[in-house]
Amino acid sequence: MGRGLLGEAGSRIAALEARTAAIVTDGHVGPLYAEALAASLQQHGLRVSIITLPPGEATKSYASLERVCDAVLEAKVERGDLVVALGGGVMGDLAGFAAAVVRRGVRLVQVPTTLLSQVDSSVGGKTGINSLHGKNLVGAFHQPSLVLADTALLDTLPIREMRAGYAEVVKYGLIDDPDFFAWCEANWRGVFDGGPERDEAVAQSCRAKAAVVVKDEREDGDRALLNLGHTFGHALERITYYDSARLVHGEGVAIGMCQAFRFSVALGVCPPADAERVEAHLSEAGLPTRLAQVPGGCGTVDELLDAMAQDKKVKGGALTFILVRGIGQSFIARDVPVASVRAFLQDENSTSRP
Amino acid sequence: MGRGLLGEAGSRIAALEARTAAIVTDGHVGPLYAEALAASLQQHGLRVSIITLPPGEATKSYASLERVCDAVLEAKVERGDLVVALGGGVMGDLAGFAAAVVRRGVRLVQVPTTLLSQVDSSVGGKTGINSLHGKNLVGAFHQPSLVLADTALLDTLPIREMRAGYAEVVKYGLIDDPDFFAWCEANWRGVFDGGPERDEAVAQSCRAKAAVVVKDEREDGDRALLNLGHTFGHALERITYYDSARLVHGEGVAIGMCQAFRFSVALGVCPPADAERVEAHLSEAGLPTRLAQVPGGCGTVDELLDAMAQDKKVKGGALTFILVRGIGQSFIARDVPVASVRAFLQDENSTSRP
Ligand SMILES: NC(=O)c1ccc[n+]([C@@H]2O[C@H](COP(=O)([O-])OP(=O)(O)OC[C@H]3O[C@@H](n4cnc5c(N)ncnc54)[C@H](O)[C@@H]3O)[C@@H](O)[C@H]2O)c1
Ligand SMILES: NC(=O)c1ccc[n+]([C@@H]2O[C@H](COP(=O)([O-])OP(=O)(O)OC[C@H]3O[C@@H](n4cnc5c(N)ncnc54)[C@H](O)[C@@H]3O)[C@@H](O)[C@H]2O)c1
Repeated sequence: MGRGLLGEAGSRIAALEARTAAIVTDGHVGPLYAEALAASLQQHGLRVSIITLPPGEATKSYASLERVCDAVLEAKVERGDLVVALGGGVMGDLAGFAAAVVRRGVRLVQVPTTLLSQVDSSVGGKTGINSLHGKNLVGAFHQPSLVLADTALLDTLPIREMRAGYAEVVKYGLIDDPDFFAWCEANWRGVFDGGPERDEAVAQSCRAKAAVVVKDEREDGDRALLNLGHTFGHALERITYYDSARLVHGEGVAIGMCQAFRFSVALGVCPPADAERVEAHLSEAGLPTRLAQVPGGCGTVDELLDAMAQDKKVKGGALTFILVRGIGQSFIARDVPVASVRAFLQDENSTSRP
Repeated sequence: MGRGLLGEAGSRIAALEARTAAIVTDGHVGPLYAEALAASLQQHGLRVSIITLPPGEATKSYASLERVCDAVLEAKVERGDLVVALGGGVMGDLAGFAAAVVRRGVRLVQVPTTLLSQVDSSVGGKTGINSLHGKNLVGAFHQPSLVLADTALLDTLPIREMRAGYAEVVKYGLIDDPDFFAWCEANWRGVFDGGPERDEAVAQSCRAKAAVVVKDEREDGDRALLNLGHTFGHALERITYYDSARLVHGEGVAIGMCQAFRFSVALGVCPPADAERVEAHLSEAGLPTRLAQVPGGCGTVDELLDAMAQDKKVKGGALTFILVRGIGQSFIARDVPVASVRAFLQDENSTSRP
C-alpha cells in the first residue's frame, strides 16, 4: 500500500514465483494502467495476457465469468499461476471469482484502482457475480496472495467514484471507531486531494476491515457489521437496476448508512444528534444521504421491502439489520420485524419528498 | 451406503436441520426417483424444489450452472439450506459446484445413482463443469455434508453405465491393492447382478478413495494416483466430443488404464503379463480396452497428443502420467517426454488397427 507502487508490481509479483499471469481489467482502467503493469511483469520474466471487459456493474455476470475463465485458460494459466485483477470492485469480484474456480483455484493478485476497492473489496476474500435474484449471490471465498494498492492510481478516478469509496472509509468509523470518524471529519479533503491523508485513510480502513475478517472470515458472526448501510444500500441498487448513471454502490451505502442511523433513531436506540452528524459529514463530502436524491426515484415502500427481502442477509425469513447505538457503536439486530421497517420507510418517503 | 437407503433419506437428511432442499436431477433419474426422495424429505418437514436438467455430459456447462444457481436461489435456499444432487457424476459435479458458489456456499447432499458416482465422484469433494478448453477445468472443492449411496438404485442403470462405473472399481485395485483386483476377478458378476458383492465393492471403493483424499484433499500429491487411466481417458473423451453414444467416461478410463499399463510395459517398468491380465479382466466385464474399439475412431496421434496437452494434469509444460510397476503398484511420473508418448501412441495405432 502506498503511492507509486505500480512501478514495483513486477518485483513484488515475481516473488510469488508464477510463470504466467492473466491480467483482468476493464475498458476504463486497462488503457490507463494495463500496459505499465504488463511491462513490469514481463521484465520480471512472467508471461502476460490482458483480458479487457466492459466497465460497470453489469459485467459481474455469468456471461463475463465464462468469458474470463475461458480467457484465463486460453492464456494457459496453470496451477500455481496467477490471475491479476486490475480495476475497481467489479474487476476484483469477477476476476477473483474466476481465479477461485479456474482449475478449482489458481492464485489471485488484487491491484485495486478505486478508493472503494482499496479500502474494502480487495481485502477479505469475498468474490462473486450478481444473479437475477440479487447482488453477489453467486461467488466464492478466495483470499488474494497479494494486494497492491497504489494510491496514486486514484488520481484519475472520477470524483463521483472517489466519493463513493469515501462512504466506505467513513463506514469503518461508524462501525466501531468514533475517533476515526472524527479524523475523517477533520481530514477528508486531504483524502480527496491525494495528500498523505489518503494513504492514512486507506491504511486505517484496511486495518479495520482485516481485523474483522480475521475474526470471522465466513461471515457467521461479526463480519456482518461490515454490512452497515448495505441492506438498504443493496435494495436501492436493485431498484435502480445497478444503473451507475443513477446510483453507484458507495452512494447506495451512503444513503443506507444514513437510513441505518435514522432507523436506529426511530427505534429509539440512537441519539438523533449522531444521525445528524453522520448525514452532515457525508453531505459535506458530496454524497447523497436521502432516498429523494436518487435520480428517477426509488420506488414504493413495497418495492423497497421486496428488494430488501431478496437480499442474502435474510435468515429464516426475518430481516437482519446492522443498527447503531451511536457513532462507532454498531450492532447486529436479527429478527427485525418487517412492520417496523415498513413504518420507517413510509416515514422516510413522506419526509424526504417535500 | 446400502440397499434401500432412499427410503431413509428424509430422516437422515432432516438430521442436517435445514429448512429447504433443492433437488437437482436429470431427465432419466428424476422420473424414477425424485418424487420418492421429495416425499421422504417433505415428510420430515423440509420444503422441497425439484430442478431437472437434460441428461448427459453436455449438461456440465456454464449455461447449466447459471440455470441451477438461479433455480436454487429461486427455491429460496438460504445459508444452512441444502442442494441435493440426485443422479450420476454429471449431476453430482454440476449441482455440487452450484452448491459451492450459491451464496458463496450452501450445504450439499449427494445421492449418487450410478455405480461410477457411488464409488468415485460423490466422494472427495471435487465439483465442476467443462470448458471449451477441457473437462472439469472450472469448479470448486466442496465436500458434501452427507452422501447417501443406495445400491438398489443401480438396478435401473443401463448395463453400459454399470460397466463404465465398474472400470473405476477396478481402478482402486490397480492403484495399490492387488488383493482387491483379484477379488474383482473372482466376484465381478455379483457386483453387476446386485448381490452382496455390489455393496462390498462400493464400500471398498469408497474406503480406498477416502483414504487417498484424506491425505491430499487439494491434489498436490498422492491424490493424482486416482487419475490412473484418466490422462488418456480424458483425451479420448475430448476427441469424441463427450458424445456418450461413442464413449462414456468409464469406457475412456478403461481404455486409458489399459494404455497406462501398456505404456508402462513399453517404458520397460511393468511386466507384460500384468498388462495382459488387466486387459483380460476389463474385456471379460464387457469394457473396451483399445483405441480401435471407439466407434468412429479417435483421431490421429497428433490429435490425441493435443487433447492430452490441454488436460489439466499438464504442469509447467511437461506431461504428468500415472504409470505402473505392476497391478497395485501405480506411481506418479512427472516430466514424461512427449516423444515417448508419441512413439507409444503410434505403436498403439498400428497394432490396434489390424
Ligand atoms: N468483495 C467485496 O468484499 C466487496 C466489498 C464492497 C464492494 N464490492 C463490490 O465492488 C463493486 C464496486 O466497486 P467499485 O466502486 O470499485 O466500482 P467499479 O469497479 O465499477 O469502478 C468504478 C468505475 O471507475 C472506473 N475506474 C476504476 N479505477 C479507475 C481509475 N484508477 N481511474 C479511472 N477510472 C477508474 C471503472 O472503470 C468504473 O467505471 C460492486 O460490485 C460491489 O458489490 C465488493
Ligand atoms: N467429482 C469427481 O471426483 C468425479 C470423479 C469421476 C467422474 N466424475 C464425473 O462424473 C461424470 C460421469 O458420471 P456418470 O458416469 O455417473 O454419468 P452420468 O451422470 O451422465 O450418468 C450416466 C447415465 O445414466 C443415467 N442414470 C443415472 N442413474 C441412473 C439410474 N439409477 N437408473 C437409470 N439411469 C440412470 C443418467 O441419466 C445418464 O444418462 C463425468 O462428468 C466425470 O467427469 C467426477
